[in-house]
Amino acid sequence: MKTPDLDELTDGALRSDRAALGRALTLVESELPAHREFAQELLARLLPHTGKAIRLGITGPPGVGKSTLIDALGTQRTAAGQRVAVLAVDPTSGRSGGSILGDKTRMARLSRDPSAFIRPSPSQGALGGVARKSREARLVLEAAGFDVVILETVGVGQSETEVAEMVDHFLVLLQPGSGDELQGIKRGVLELADLLAVNKADGEQKPAAERTRHQHEMALHFLRPKHEAWTPEVVCVSARTEEGLEALWDRVVAHREVLQRTGLLQTERAAQDVRWMWRVVDQELTSRMRRDPRVRAVASEVEAKVSSGSLPPTAAALELLARFGVSV
Amino acid sequence: MKTPDLDELTDGALRSDRAALGRALTLVESELPAHREFAQELLARLLPHTGKAIRLGITGPPGVGKSTLIDALGTQRTAAGQRVAVLAVDPTSGRSGGSILGDKTRMARLSRDPSAFIRPSPSQGALGGVARKSREARLVLEAAGFDVVILETVGVGQSETEVAEMVDHFLVLLQPGSGDELQGIKRGVLELADLLAVNKADGEQKPAAERTRHQHEMALHFLRPKHEAWTPEVVCVSARTEEGLEALWDRVVAHREVLQRTGLLQTERAAQDVRWMWRVVDQELTSRMRRDPRVRAVASEVEAKVSSGSLPPTAAALELLARFGVSV
Repeated sequence: MKTPDLDELTDGALRSDRAALGRALTLVESELPAHREFAQELLARLLPHTGKAIRLGITGPPGVGKSTLIDALGTQRTAAGQRVAVLAVDPTSGRSGGSILGDKTRMARLSRDPSAFIRPSPSQGALGGVARKSREARLVLEAAGFDVVILETVGVGQSETEVAEMVDHFLVLLQPGSGDELQGIKRGVLELADLLAVNKADGEQKPAAERTRHQHEMALHFLRPKHEAWTPEVVCVSARTEEGLEALWDRVVAHREVLQRTGLLQTERAAQDVRWMWRVVDQELTSRMRRDPRVRAVASEVEAKVSSGSLPPTAAALELLARFGVSV
Repeated sequence: MKTPDLDELTDGALRSDRAALGRALTLVESELPAHREFAQELLARLLPHTGKAIRLGITGPPGVGKSTLIDALGTQRTAAGQRVAVLAVDPTSGRSGGSILGDKTRMARLSRDPSAFIRPSPSQGALGGVARKSREARLVLEAAGFDVVILETVGVGQSETEVAEMVDHFLVLLQPGSGDELQGIKRGVLELADLLAVNKADGEQKPAAERTRHQHEMALHFLRPKHEAWTPEVVCVSARTEEGLEALWDRVVAHREVLQRTGLLQTERAAQDVRWMWRVVDQELTSRMRRDPRVRAVASEVEAKVSSGSLPPTAAALELLARFGVSV
């Protein structure tokens, strides 16, 4: 990438010009220190234009039909006059298999929709890096005027927790099943959900979907809701037949109305931003400490002493911290 | 706690005097800065006497019978002439319910066994704090000459990962079940296991236990083993009837022989120590940054700006880092 023209990028992103948008996203996803500075300047310029979008997070196990649902839901929203952006957040992408977004064919309609924009997951780096990039990419898309920004993720490591921290509404998709399928979804993920939807509730699977819906509704009774004002709901949908899709969106809108009425939309976003600030602090501290020349000069030697058992790990850590110039 | 007499504590711990051991453990589990310094000095003195124990980690879902198994296994080991210590590692303890060790009645035989020592989980703090305390407590018990140190944990958050990082052998306990119960255990935990045991393999549950054993053995074929030299095994046991308990211990010994023959015991312990050193570095950086008076002087103001949207979180983070004196 050449040295970016920030005026051009800012204007292009605000006009939602696809080429400029692509370049702006590539810039904020870049790991190069030179780009990071430009990216921060771009984000500072775009920030005043963000905040109006409906931030919707969607997770669910592989095979539950996330792409199909997003394709159908997104197409309904653009038909209703809204502009829709989809961001994949996948710390496994770029590594072996399991990537949730490799091409645009998996959202066939939405990828050809002029009112929609799909961005695959940034491929590099650990979850922390992917989270940073996704968060900043979301800001770019909001500034570009998308009404709905969907963040899609699979349940890998802490990726659901990360995405829940970036959105207003967190939707968990479930498989129709029979028996003890509550085990299939981690309790922690259930606690993050504002909405749950059992997908594939069509044809023969309808009764199983209804059972799953009922079971999860029961399970939710045992969890303390995130906020008194909203009890998470479970609905049945079919992304294939589109049955229940309007009703699902109605629940998103209902949740949003509660968040707005109670002031939670603003306070939650503010709290997310503050938590994010501290996360950045911690990530930067860690990475600067490891890059610091005074630390690097002795790190191998200290590691060798710890490896051989001649220096206790905690004492070694204190020695490295002293090198970094952090007062004890 | 009074100012500790380090000579007395060191000698007492090395003699495995129960009262001294208890005080030494309380000291290393203390959060008080004054105690931390003494604790580090105590650990430095004890370190040369550590490293000889069999470090065994045990995890499994609630109700799988961890306590019963440890009680039976530990009693067998003391009968065989070994001294056994049990450490609970439970980040939920001290909070609402769910604690894995509240009293000594759940390991009835071992708690009355003069060759055994049971230490409940340190109650305070987040997982990071509990992990630090458990790791240091393990060193104290090793210095006290226990031949086997068992670290027990439940699957809460990342606690299995933490415990796997402190032990030579990681044993995962399973419930007998029928059907799709692989879902019940997180894939990540399966990847940590050196050994798996299906407990309650007695009476009517024997066939179900055998099915579960077989299923998990199949599942393990799809995972890359941690080391070429050892393929994790799945055995059936009954902590109640003690059937299979000797065979289970034989597998621990077999695993240890492989680790020793290949040199992995030493290299893995060294790698664990180095990773631990960097974890301490990160935890200390985080906590010192937050305690730093220059940071505290502006933190509320910066948080308020981020909350109101007038300062982007990343820019705010850089401002706080600059206050902390970390060069950009």
